[in-house]
Amino acid sequence: MYIATYTASANIAVVKYWGKRNEELILPYNNSLSFTMDDNLQTITTVMFSEKFSQDELWLNGKKMDLQKGKKSHVLPVDLLRKKADIDLPVRIVSKNCFPTGAGFASSASGVAALVCATSKALNLTLSGKELSMLARQGSGSASRSVYGGFVEWLKGDLEDGTDSFAQQIAPHDHWPELRNVIAVVETEEKKVSSRHGMKTTTLTSALYEKRLQYLEGVIPKMKEAVLQKDFATFAELTMRESNSMHASMLDTWPPIMYLSDGSREVIYMVEDLNAELGKTVAGYTFDAGPNAHIYTTEEYESVIKERLEKIAHVKNIEVCKVGQGPQQISDEAQFLIDPQNGEPRL
Amino acid sequence: MYIATYTASANIAVVKYWGKRNEELILPYNNSLSFTMDDNLQTITTVMFSEKFSQDELWLNGKKMDLQKGKKSHVLPVDLLRKKADIDLPVRIVSKNCFPTGAGFASSASGVAALVCATSKALNLTLSGKELSMLARQGSGSASRSVYGGFVEWLKGDLEDGTDSFAQQIAPHDHWPELRNVIAVVETEEKKVSSRHGMKTTTLTSALYEKRLQYLEGVIPKMKEAVLQKDFATFAELTMRESNSMHASMLDTWPPIMYLSDGSREVIYMVEDLNAELGKTVAGYTFDAGPNAHIYTTEEYESVIKERLEKIAHVKNIEVCKVGQGPQQISDEAQFLIDPQNGEPRL
Repeated sequence: MYIATYTASANIAVVKYWGKRNEELILPYNNSLSFTMDDNLQTITTVMFSEKFSQDELWLNGKKMDLQKGKKSHVLPVDLLRKKADIDLPVRIVSKNCFPTGAGFASSASGVAALVCATSKALNLTLSGKELSMLARQGSGSASRSVYGGFVEWLKGDLEDGTDSFAQQIAPHDHWPELRNVIAVVETEEKKVSSRHGMKTTTLTSALYEKRLQYLEGVIPKMKEAVLQKDFATFAELTMRESNSMHASMLDTWPPIMYLSDGSREVIYMVEDLNAELGKTVAGYTFDAGPNAHIYTTEEYESVIKERLEKIAHVKNIEVCKVGQGPQQISDEAQFLIDPQNGEPRL
Repeated sequence: MYIATYTASANIAVVKYWGKRNEELILPYNNSLSFTMDDNLQTITTVMFSEKFSQDELWLNGKKMDLQKGKKSHVLPVDLLRKKADIDLPVRIVSKNCFPTGAGFASSASGVAALVCATSKALNLTLSGKELSMLARQGSGSASRSVYGGFVEWLKGDLEDGTDSFAQQIAPHDHWPELRNVIAVVETEEKKVSSRHGMKTTTLTSALYEKRLQYLEGVIPKMKEAVLQKDFATFAELTMRESNSMHASMLDTWPPIMYLSDGSREVIYMVEDLNAELGKTVAGYTFDAGPNAHIYTTEEYESVIKERLEKIAHVKNIEVCKVGQGPQQISDEAQFLIDPQNGEPRL
């Protein structure tokens, strides 16, 4: 039976991926670092290969997708694995994001990571984390990090063929159990620029971008040390400054990319004020390619941050994540998103 | 009679001054370029020296200011000129901004330029533009440019004593008569960071700032050439990118400086959309240390820009300026802000 189900979770980077040195292979200009989140930001994916199927098919969040039109993120890793296993059968993929309603964001990282793990298992392949990470990378860059739990580094690599560009775990999920990520969903407005297009124009047009890359080379070892030592204040300041640096290089892009809204700025000021009031750094914000804030903090300060966020009119929704343990296989067939008996999707 | 009255206007930079290499002498890290505006953004200042006065006094916009507490921008140039003229008399200064009501911004540039011109005249000094510019610079950096009309460059200079850091006119006010500056006042919220404090922290903390300075070295000659050739498209694109670069280095500052609001972003998108629709660049935005937009355009497109701005909810007020001719002496004593007969301020 060529069927398997996996969950995988989104990761929230503290040194972010923004800019590819190779568009085709998805090779980045800089190493990046992230924490993989817990099951509050999870995707579940079932993959089944069968001679009964007439063609490859994909359902995302209950909706049939046209595999002919793009969806390279899902097609490519499956094709690579199917060739590797030498099993030439049509596939059905059913995938569902279990993100909080109205979270206003969806990460392809968890989806592609779950897909790669489930496909590999369905084909009875035994792959290393490094191999899974490289396959996920070719579907969606940041997915390379979501194949592990805990604290993860994606190495940019130097080789042209990308064989040295993969992620590895720096610390397991239980290394820093008090760590929390408080998510403030501040807007639902449509994103003007896709990440993929945006990062390309940044590398082509921003005069400041090169300096960001130099800056990150110094940040990476400091960030790893701060996390390994659980030095929250250093970790949080580096995180905030790195996020600001990325959004600065976005603003310096032509035409400019502006993801931070008035709501984002209010969250930034709230974090600044809280840290100033307490006389120590207990919270650090970071923003991906969107206006929603991710506030890293520790268990102790989770409730005060939630209270303050609730007072900000622009904040629509608040969620809290812990660090998660990475992709998990689901063995209970009742939970599969495809019926193993007849291959029918359970939407 | 030691009395004189001058008007001077604000200038709107297209390569901006942000960062001092010498705080005391106000010496900048980069050359800057601006257009001096017309009498829509004007300050009028009367200066009078008299043995009848018991002490130096200053009224700004009808309000008596405490000269002991700061106001270095006004005290220092007057003191330097008083010493130069060797006239040891107390001074009264009355100054009024004739900016549109609710414009939400005030530039010290026009005030200090009018002050330096009026003081110099009141003391019967005959100073060159270069001398006036250096004096104004020591009151407020960007005031060094407002002592001229038209298109002006402030040279950063290299000397430690600042004697080579002054402004000069590149083109007179009637060089490009079709040029317009449409001002969109988008917010009235309080500014979180003063320019003076902000630019200092940028130079001390932004990793990207150094790259901005290198970038500007390439921009300056291109911008001058575009203005001299009246090549609007090149001029406007350079202006927008320069503004974005400055706000990027502000965002990269620690703690971050964020002047652009949702309203600012809406104006940016409006300009992008208009240029895209018309298939050519007819408008270029620039933002100083605040959320209000200055849109450079030509007479032909002034009305379409105003129409589009009126549709943006965040835009509170719209004003249009032409390029102005610089400081003007007022000879009609009836318009003086101090009664020449008795030295009483006319508030």
